[in-house]
Amino acid sequence: MAPVTYGIAIFPSKDVQDVANSYRMRYDPRYSLIPPHITLKEQFQASEGEIEEIAAACKKIANEMEPFDIEINRVSSFSPATHTVYLKVEANRSLIHLNEKMHEEPFPVEREHKFVPHITISQELSEDEHSDVYGSLRLSKFELSDTIDRFQLLYQLDDGSWTVYETFKFDKE
Amino acid sequence: MAPVTYGIAIFPSKDVQDVANSYRMRYDPRYSLIPPHITLKEQFQASEGEIEEIAAACKKIANEMEPFDIEINRVSSFSPATHTVYLKVEANRSLIHLNEKMHEEPFPVEREHKFVPHITISQELSEDEHSDVYGSLRLSKFELSDTIDRFQLLYQLDDGSWTVYETFKFDKE
Repeated sequence: MAPVTYGIAIFPSKDVQDVANSYRMRYDPRYSLIPPHITLKEQFQASEGEIEEIAAACKKIANEMEPFDIEINRVSSFSPATHTVYLKVEANRSLIHLNEKMHEEPFPVEREHKFVPHITISQELSEDEHSDVYGSLRLSKFELSDTIDRFQLLYQLDDGSWTVYETFKFDKE
Repeated sequence: MAPVTYGIAIFPSKDVQDVANSYRMRYDPRYSLIPPHITLKEQFQASEGEIEEIAAACKKIANEMEPFDIEINRVSSFSPATHTVYLKVEANRSLIHLNEKMHEEPFPVEREHKFVPHITISQELSEDEHSDVYGSLRLSKFELSDTIDRFQLLYQLDDGSWTVYETFKFDKE
């Protein structure tokens, strides 16, 4: 069997997702491929055997975590690297810990980017469109908070959309 | 907080999903709202307290299940009730057991339909379009099989799309 493409993400609460989608439906052509999310580990390839080992490692990570809070206060952009506008999730020790653990064996350890916790709300727009969207949103005030108690391992279908393979709930007693 | 809409479904393997999506992308306007799936329990409303009790019940059901095989040999239609064409999943004891358990307390017990395990590939077409699609697909031969080892509890966002809340893996020792 060909290797499958996987990724690891947090889906925030319905309330936060609904806010993100109100922008994504207008400004993100990849809107329908996956619900609003915070990527913990960018896409990687794994065989059936490898993913079972990685799922076991995810379970171990989640077992040792407690639920933690996140805060979103503003919008930012990856411009000029890409025309991606996002809800900036304030970095905290728990998010950084999750991201770091997911770049140690048995996970693939390569990184393309520094970890910037975020929820994409606009991407793949022209330079002018990006300027318009970011120009109007950077002045908006956001006061979103959420409690995170799980993350999800997903795989990608041939059409580019993502399906959840497994949920890992934080379970520190 | 307002009650949230939940549903329970099985996502079959990537291979089966890719086949279903090759039809859905053309014939199903609800294609982008959720990956291809077998509905175990139709949408229902629950409060935060209720859903925690239901999630616990899901976990108990999954703990007592073993992985089981499914087979898809043909396409069928719910016509004339609706213009929905689907991959017919052969009913088996495990599917029926899951569906029955999910219509006992603490789950809402009402049913709108008899349980017909299926993966929708076409819906909301006009009568003529439905006749065309069903007419051509009913003659096609399908030989899909899969092993099911988990199901998923999902909730619906305001835009109609679905997010996985939790995965329940079968865990009978």
